[in-house]
Amino acid sequence: MLVVDRYLEDYVVGETRTTLGRTITEADVMIHAGQTGDFFPHHVDAEWCATQSFGRRIAHGTLVLSVAVGMTAGDVNPQAMSYGYDRIRFVRPVFLGDTITVRAEVVAIRDSAKNPAVGHVDEQVTVTNQDGDVVLALTHLYVVNRKDVG
Amino acid sequence: MLVVDRYLEDYVVGETRTTLGRTITEADVMIHAGQTGDFFPHHVDAEWCATQSFGRRIAHGTLVLSVAVGMTAGDVNPQAMSYGYDRIRFVRPVFLGDTITVRAEVVAIRDSAKNPAVGHVDEQVTVTNQDGDVVLALTHLYVVNRKDVG
Amino acid sequence: MLVVDRYLEDYVVGETRTTLGRTITEADVMIHAGQTGDFFPHHVDAEWCATQSFGRRIAHGTLVLSVAVGMTAGDVNPQAMSYGYDRIRFVRPVFLGDTITVRAEVVAIRDSAKNPAVGHVDEQVTVTNQDGDVVLALTHLYVVNRKDVG
Amino acid sequence: MLVVDRYLEDYVVGETRTTLGRTITEADVMIHAGQTGDFFPHHVDAEWCATQSFGRRIAHGTLVLSVAVGMTAGDVNPQAMSYGYDRIRFVRPVFLGDTITVRAEVVAIRDSAKNPAVGHVDEQVTVTNQDGDVVLALTHLYVVNRKDVG
Amino acid sequence: MLVVDRYLEDYVVGETRTTLGRTITEADVMIHAGQTGDFFPHHVDAEWCATQSFGRRIAHGTLVLSVAVGMTAGDVNPQAMSYGYDRIRFVRPVFLGDTITVRAEVVAIRDSAKNPAVGHVDEQVTVTNQDGDVVLALTHLYVVNRKDVG
Amino acid sequence: MLVVDRYLEDYVVGETRTTLGRTITEADVMIHAGQTGDFFPHHVDAEWCATQSFGRRIAHGTLVLSVAVGMTAGDVNPQAMSYGYDRIRFVRPVFLGDTITVRAEVVAIRDSAKNPAVGHVDEQVTVTNQDGDVVLALTHLYVVNRKDVG
Repeated sequence: MLVVDRYLEDYVVGETRTTLGRTITEADVMIHAGQTGDFFPHHVDAEWCATQSFGRRIAHGTLVLSVAVGMTAGDVNPQAMSYGYDRIRFVRPVFLGDTITVRAEVVAIRDSAKNPAVGHVDEQVTVTNQDGDVVLALTHLYVVNRKDVG
Repeated sequence: MLVVDRYLEDYVVGETRTTLGRTITEADVMIHAGQTGDFFPHHVDAEWCATQSFGRRIAHGTLVLSVAVGMTAGDVNPQAMSYGYDRIRFVRPVFLGDTITVRAEVVAIRDSAKNPAVGHVDEQVTVTNQDGDVVLALTHLYVVNRKDVG
Repeated sequence: MLVVDRYLEDYVVGETRTTLGRTITEADVMIHAGQTGDFFPHHVDAEWCATQSFGRRIAHGTLVLSVAVGMTAGDVNPQAMSYGYDRIRFVRPVFLGDTITVRAEVVAIRDSAKNPAVGHVDEQVTVTNQDGDVVLALTHLYVVNRKDVG
Repeated sequence: MLVVDRYLEDYVVGETRTTLGRTITEADVMIHAGQTGDFFPHHVDAEWCATQSFGRRIAHGTLVLSVAVGMTAGDVNPQAMSYGYDRIRFVRPVFLGDTITVRAEVVAIRDSAKNPAVGHVDEQVTVTNQDGDVVLALTHLYVVNRKDVG
Repeated sequence: MLVVDRYLEDYVVGETRTTLGRTITEADVMIHAGQTGDFFPHHVDAEWCATQSFGRRIAHGTLVLSVAVGMTAGDVNPQAMSYGYDRIRFVRPVFLGDTITVRAEVVAIRDSAKNPAVGHVDEQVTVTNQDGDVVLALTHLYVVNRKDVG
Repeated sequence: MLVVDRYLEDYVVGETRTTLGRTITEADVMIHAGQTGDFFPHHVDAEWCATQSFGRRIAHGTLVLSVAVGMTAGDVNPQAMSYGYDRIRFVRPVFLGDTITVRAEVVAIRDSAKNPAVGHVDEQVTVTNQDGDVVLALTHLYVVNRKDVG
């Protein structure tokens, strides 16, 4: 983990990052159930899942989201601050044993309406499973300092 | 945890749920760092945090989000499926030792453009700390079966 | 999780609650070994277990007990306090991958010998596996406030 | 951890074991909440606890029980099998930061009514905090093989 | 866990201890990744591992080391202090599901060059898998008080 | 986490890496006790520690080692393989709440006696606390592929 200063002027629309893969394990799901208190049968009852159309246990949406966002946390940039997400969509279930990879692309760079010293960077985050199917999509929102405030 | 069937017709705009409180602990933050691989110094380096304007360690945004959504997971409703979130905003930091409570209010009920058998329910989720300050806001999106498809 | 006041007069012998299922995973067993320090080979040595009559790893008794009691923790009742258990019996082993459900039945309501303002409620807790076999039984003991102390 | 064969004839009423101490930490409580799904405010809401007569967060009864029984798990005895507990009583609350020690004493050795090849050993388990106050008591029940069945 | 005083004079070159077995689970690996922040694909990406010569996920070296050293932590000896390790070698990979056992042998007892009141004990630690293959070797270094300093 | 090919020829004696800081928490210690089964009172009994010269709980040596090595796990280098450590020395205790940083310096690059296609890289790893005191030192050993084997 490195500290790298990147200012608003350093971002380019279209730049992308792609992570290595990570297998979502039964242990991940149990730890996430334990962290959130969400023990819905979709996640922790293998017998009941076997009677449902999806057939087996599914990772929590917030687990896939948390891991995927964490996988994109590379360098520490003191000039940028994450302030939210837009349009989080759980497109397909992630099953125990699935392996996800994450692609993040800068899709918008905008001035701030309120503060000329900063701007906004939107990063489109796309999570795919081992079959190449998209399982989760979201837009990650950053506010980033300008180098030249002028 | 109970299984309760609630159909689209059973939801009412303005209905609200409020959770009990939960203290976000140092253990929560370490477990979340471990689950996501996000060991940013904002979360795990007390010495560095003491040199910053915010002064002490901050919970991960995805931790607060995951716990808050988990706290609203009450009855299992086989007629509803969560499919995403809109406008997640991390309004204020949550520090280790802060106690959060969550309020969820149905703010919109809409027809589905594609499928007359279902509709959409939007739930506004608001997370506050022990001082009553909002720390996180988001809209939770559900697709819900109609009872009378007719 | 709701807060619901239930007084001694509100309990009825024979009333029952039944939980959804939960699969006891390898992760559960490792986390429980880690919490308790009990790394007996019955729980953590798959090779040795394969040489024994039971054939595979078994969940700790205290794991099954803790999870089962936790599964019955529904509403918070400020009028009741759990003070112990009687006759805990580990009737059959729970193997990794087994799914348990819990049934709790009020089997006795008694006056307090010492305090007319409270009474005792005994709840019989029965844990079964996916084959319907009982694996654990215990009596959960509560002291509950009377509404009418007179 | 050693494997030591102890037969029914090797047990003596009055023999005792005493463990070292263990501090029950906030991390223990969060991990136990996560394992059991019991997020009752008594354990996880510091703000609410501060408004109650007990004043601060309390460890789960099943946490204290599981840790205490685990602390008495010394040698592996292939001749003995734990089959249950009697009269578990949560005598005093254990607060986060309290340090417990456990004393186990053989209080009864009995013939088996059904099987002459085995007998029963009852071990009284007493858990005390750093002030010497008893916080938990229970009887641990074992069935133990006889050396001389003849 | 017992407290047993063993002085330098009580150690004998050639004395050995052997542990019971422990299966290294997927949960162990995820917890270790979470503790260390090491999410290298060798440990957490089952898909990528399947494309490599070793074929499946491998436990972290520091996991095997930590568990193996922990397995040799028997009695507490107030007269000895562990101060380091020499020649740690990861001889073979440990795969998820492998079961390890540990053998520790006193291989050297030496005077201290600086302090006549203590001496050094070197313990050779050898970790083997279920096939009897050595997977890890190291020398554990202790400084131990003499009984007779005179 | 990036995949970066670095061959033996790319390493230079004297090159150094320095990590950000990480606070070793009570949760880290409990999770490590749970992973290793090492519940020695030095780590988990605050009352007993208060009676000792060191005065408070100490992190496990293997915890500090595992975290420190994990903190140096930056890019994935397919051309290098870690095969062991030399001269691990626990120089000073790490207390709960201490913050460590890690410095890694290439101190030796050597030919392989057996295989001309590879060489050895030794990295000296030094762990310091928030006071700048060294708490742990070790040499991390890698075998690295040559680019030009010819």
